[in-house]
Amino acid sequence: MQFTKWHGLGNDFILLETKPDSLPKDKIPSFTRRLCDRNFGVGGDGLVFVFQDEQGMINMRIFNADGSEAEMCGNAIRCVAKYAYQKGLAKEIIFQIKTKAGVKVPELILEEGSVAAAKVDMGEPILEREKIPVAGEPGDRVVNEVIEVGDNILKFTAVSMGNPHCLIFVPDAGSAPVRTLGPRLECHRLFPSRTNVEFVEVLNRKEARVRVWERGVGETLACGTGACATAVGGALAGYLDRKVRVYLPGGELLVEWAENNHVYMTGPAEEVFQGYLHDEFIKRILDENPEPQANGSNR
Amino acid sequence: MQFTKWHGLGNDFILLETKPDSLPKDKIPSFTRRLCDRNFGVGGDGLVFVFQDEQGMINMRIFNADGSEAEMCGNAIRCVAKYAYQKGLAKEIIFQIKTKAGVKVPELILEEGSVAAAKVDMGEPILEREKIPVAGEPGDRVVNEVIEVGDNILKFTAVSMGNPHCLIFVPDAGSAPVRTLGPRLECHRLFPSRTNVEFVEVLNRKEARVRVWERGVGETLACGTGACATAVGGALAGYLDRKVRVYLPGGELLVEWAENNHVYMTGPAEEVFQGYLHDEFIKRILDENPEPQANGSNR
Repeated sequence: MQFTKWHGLGNDFILLETKPDSLPKDKIPSFTRRLCDRNFGVGGDGLVFVFQDEQGMINMRIFNADGSEAEMCGNAIRCVAKYAYQKGLAKEIIFQIKTKAGVKVPELILEEGSVAAAKVDMGEPILEREKIPVAGEPGDRVVNEVIEVGDNILKFTAVSMGNPHCLIFVPDAGSAPVRTLGPRLECHRLFPSRTNVEFVEVLNRKEARVRVWERGVGETLACGTGACATAVGGALAGYLDRKVRVYLPGGELLVEWAENNHVYMTGPAEEVFQGYLHDEFIKRILDENPEPQANGSNR
Repeated sequence: MQFTKWHGLGNDFILLETKPDSLPKDKIPSFTRRLCDRNFGVGGDGLVFVFQDEQGMINMRIFNADGSEAEMCGNAIRCVAKYAYQKGLAKEIIFQIKTKAGVKVPELILEEGSVAAAKVDMGEPILEREKIPVAGEPGDRVVNEVIEVGDNILKFTAVSMGNPHCLIFVPDAGSAPVRTLGPRLECHRLFPSRTNVEFVEVLNRKEARVRVWERGVGETLACGTGACATAVGGALAGYLDRKVRVYLPGGELLVEWAENNHVYMTGPAEEVFQGYLHDEFIKRILDENPEPQANGSNR
């Protein structure tokens, strides 16, 4: 089984050009966990299936390293877009990709004939309190509100990009208490669906340095929806313009909250290597106990 | 550039069949760090070069993920031995491999014609206190001595397998305080060269469950020299026979402290996948700043 290994700002994926249906459905979670295992498998934050459906539309399906399926991922779709173009599945630099979160339309940025970056329409932000969701009286935006975490009294701004984000503006992202306050904010009673947390250092109106605590994951090198939420929330709070360069530990993204209310994210996608898994390895991991996390001792 | 990805009990390596000389010498550390990076590179605990020298002898050189060169590694040499046999570099199941720690003689265990495991002569244990080294009056063995760590008064047995090991026998390895006492024992004043630490649960005279705190690394899935030190120290302390099955979080090893005073370790080696790195990727990472760890923001 051929695969390619990709990353977008260090958020890394194993890409298979096949339908998930090519595997037994009940085996996909254990297969994904095994393949994403960084010591015993290929290693990755997720496994991405890319294929063309009967209508010729390019499809992507993405599974997290824990075996669960994600609806979409901003870093992964840039990789998929570049892959599809390089492999000739897409003939134009703007084309549709069908995801579990609907049809997305990435645009590739070419430099001297090769793909330098991909621009992705991340959709419209959701700003109504009850839809983000943030606890309290249903109503309008959640901007610079007070939140208490233990002895800390902070201000936060909340935005959903399909998933909830809580922005905390800080004087210095490098020393921000990401790993101490991140998990406490994630599970704060104000966020009934829990939340991602961005610690945002505003460098000027056009640039921000951000560290992200991802819901259910922990601190990550780069979170695409977190960068988008930063631009939207920064504009709402009055600190940032609507077109912002966001510096994440894994690299940078250009985010624009456009006049049509859509958020556009532009960033890199890199193929690291091509790989080949032997049939006997595939057979073996498909034959393993489908719930290896139950024994739990290895990771 | 072709490579293969291997692991021995989850201790994982990128294997290149080439001489280190094929790369500019001053670039090897940064190249290794970049390739071993689990998000931006291939990912691995180390990079192993395998090649035949002018005399036809198989050589291995191993670099840790931090770019430093290791003398030898028990998990890696099993992978190298299996690779060399499968690729026809070695024609017999017992052959010599030259390492920075001298010439080693692995033996492959075949089952139905394929390599099931590899047995490696890990050499003779070093038991004299000053050679392990353990602080105190030079002299004989260090068995069941008292060590104080904060409020804890523990007993330890010390063995060197070329690197120092401190064994703590515990009633339950699963709940052993590996991550709290491990780093404190590693840097205890009794160990002038610091030490690896094994928390050993004796199941019976022929089996032990072990968790290892590796010097300079932290808790790992499997440490070959730690398994060997367990068999030797367990026999010295009177808890274990000289032939022991050692269960590590990453899998199991059979260790025998033989009559000739050599320690033999038998365990698995698995190829996970074959890979191919594009020339432009290689060129790019060789052209990068040779000290990328200086910017430090990515990990």
